[in-house]
Amino acid sequence: MVLTDDRHPPQQEAPFDLRAYLAEGKARVEDALDRCLPITYPERIYESMRYSLLAGGKRLRPILCLATCELAGGTWEMAMPTACALEMLHTMSLIHDDLPAMDNDDYRRGKPTNHKVYGEDIAILAGDGLLAYAFEIVADTTRNVEPQNILRAIARLGRTVGAAGLVGGQVVDLESEGKSDVTLETLNFIHTHKTSALLEASVECGAILAGAEAADLDRLSRYARHIGLAFQIIDDILDITASKEVLGKTAGKDVAAGKVTFPSLLGLDESRRRAKELVESAKAEVSAFGSAALPLVAIADYITSRNY
Amino acid sequence: MVLTDDRHPPQQEAPFDLRAYLAEGKARVEDALDRCLPITYPERIYESMRYSLLAGGKRLRPILCLATCELAGGTWEMAMPTACALEMLHTMSLIHDDLPAMDNDDYRRGKPTNHKVYGEDIAILAGDGLLAYAFEIVADTTRNVEPQNILRAIARLGRTVGAAGLVGGQVVDLESEGKSDVTLETLNFIHTHKTSALLEASVECGAILAGAEAADLDRLSRYARHIGLAFQIIDDILDITASKEVLGKTAGKDVAAGKVTFPSLLGLDESRRRAKELVESAKAEVSAFGSAALPLVAIADYITSRNY
Repeated sequence: MVLTDDRHPPQQEAPFDLRAYLAEGKARVEDALDRCLPITYPERIYESMRYSLLAGGKRLRPILCLATCELAGGTWEMAMPTACALEMLHTMSLIHDDLPAMDNDDYRRGKPTNHKVYGEDIAILAGDGLLAYAFEIVADTTRNVEPQNILRAIARLGRTVGAAGLVGGQVVDLESEGKSDVTLETLNFIHTHKTSALLEASVECGAILAGAEAADLDRLSRYARHIGLAFQIIDDILDITASKEVLGKTAGKDVAAGKVTFPSLLGLDESRRRAKELVESAKAEVSAFGSAALPLVAIADYITSRNY
Repeated sequence: MVLTDDRHPPQQEAPFDLRAYLAEGKARVEDALDRCLPITYPERIYESMRYSLLAGGKRLRPILCLATCELAGGTWEMAMPTACALEMLHTMSLIHDDLPAMDNDDYRRGKPTNHKVYGEDIAILAGDGLLAYAFEIVADTTRNVEPQNILRAIARLGRTVGAAGLVGGQVVDLESEGKSDVTLETLNFIHTHKTSALLEASVECGAILAGAEAADLDRLSRYARHIGLAFQIIDDILDITASKEVLGKTAGKDVAAGKVTFPSLLGLDESRRRAKELVESAKAEVSAFGSAALPLVAIADYITSRNY
């Protein structure tokens, strides 16, 4: 995808190449993830952590973190430990959500889930290990950032994962399963906590590390909330319209589980319309940053255009 | 227990009242834990976290953290968020270790385990929530401490919980279960990672927050490793000699599970002798701190005298 910056036509800037940007970000993040988690005794737990952490994926969260650090005047290097931490937290939540006691999923990103390969006990511990390691690497390996800002990023990450974030979202999701009277309000709660929360933290943490001011953080938060919800609506749509081969995980699962989703509440067309609307709102939020926000604008567009 | 400081006889100091010290520490820690985790939506997860976090216990880890912060020139207040975090990490590891996929325990501290009350899904999430919250409160609520030292404490906590600490210890413990050829080396690995690691972090973090120097931290680490191993040996002994009523958890479980323990490898008498020897070594390590180390000396003695 190529996006030209039409807000500054006289400057004739080079078109923004999102494909190259995402590929570069993904490569840098995966290299850092690979290097920060070498296998040592007891090997099985490190293998299990690496199995899920290095299982691919778009690495959207870490890339958003790198992007907003740069947007706010920092460098990718300053944000790399936090970017890795975000991917560890995301991976940890997937490993635990897939467990038999939770969503009981057998496939994830086209591969058997962690507990199918390593057993439930190791899968639980691999999640715990990733969760703890996320905070350790941010505290221990972040360079050229004000310690005060590192602490703010750590607090932000903690809030995002805990009962006020991912964990809380998963609890309400579990409580809603099988119920036919789930409201749009509850559905919004689940998704703002399970999906948007981590995207929002990704976007905010990068900017926090670079020392961004409150007004800019607010703007970035709103951008993240919009794309987070759009992302989830598209996920719900793809669960209905895409196949397992394309999706890399069990498709049609929401319908089979009688789960209330955006399409089941609003229909496919209205869901698509809302996702588009949210992406436009997200882009409007960051337009004030001018060309510095090109990666964020392109990523917002990318979210509604994806088909896996 | 009352311990007089016989290293400084001319000063005629007041005898150190460990019972009062532990009671005061426990009350302050439990008050802080209670206040930092109010129940909010979704209530069930907060209730589950609080159920295990506020289930009593000696609060030895947080008290050790407060004690070493004071020993190194700081205050209890500076260390209180980290003290609470240590108890959250300890509680989290107990909740997850008790799960059916792990040690499958029904009782803990005289009460049904978390998953017996709230279900496995909520118990897993309660552990995750406590793990994340531990880092959040240290980063967010520690006051009057150099930000650089808060970051060092956070990194230390992360290393303690992850695959290089508690998680790694539990993995080797699970791998050793049912095996009759477990070596003393492996048993030591399990206990230094499952038990000593968190005691060591407790002792070190308090001193780190107060800005202690490397040599003092090394001394405190050795103290903690010694009492940690002594603590575990006594635990193994009590599993054989005490009843469930006194212990508050399932007794005789190690023997029933065919688990290799210190008494099974060394016999009861030799195990008792080693525990005593370790406590003496621990006390020798901190003797250089003089009367400032009275709480640590008394706690070391307390560990071999406990019967629950």
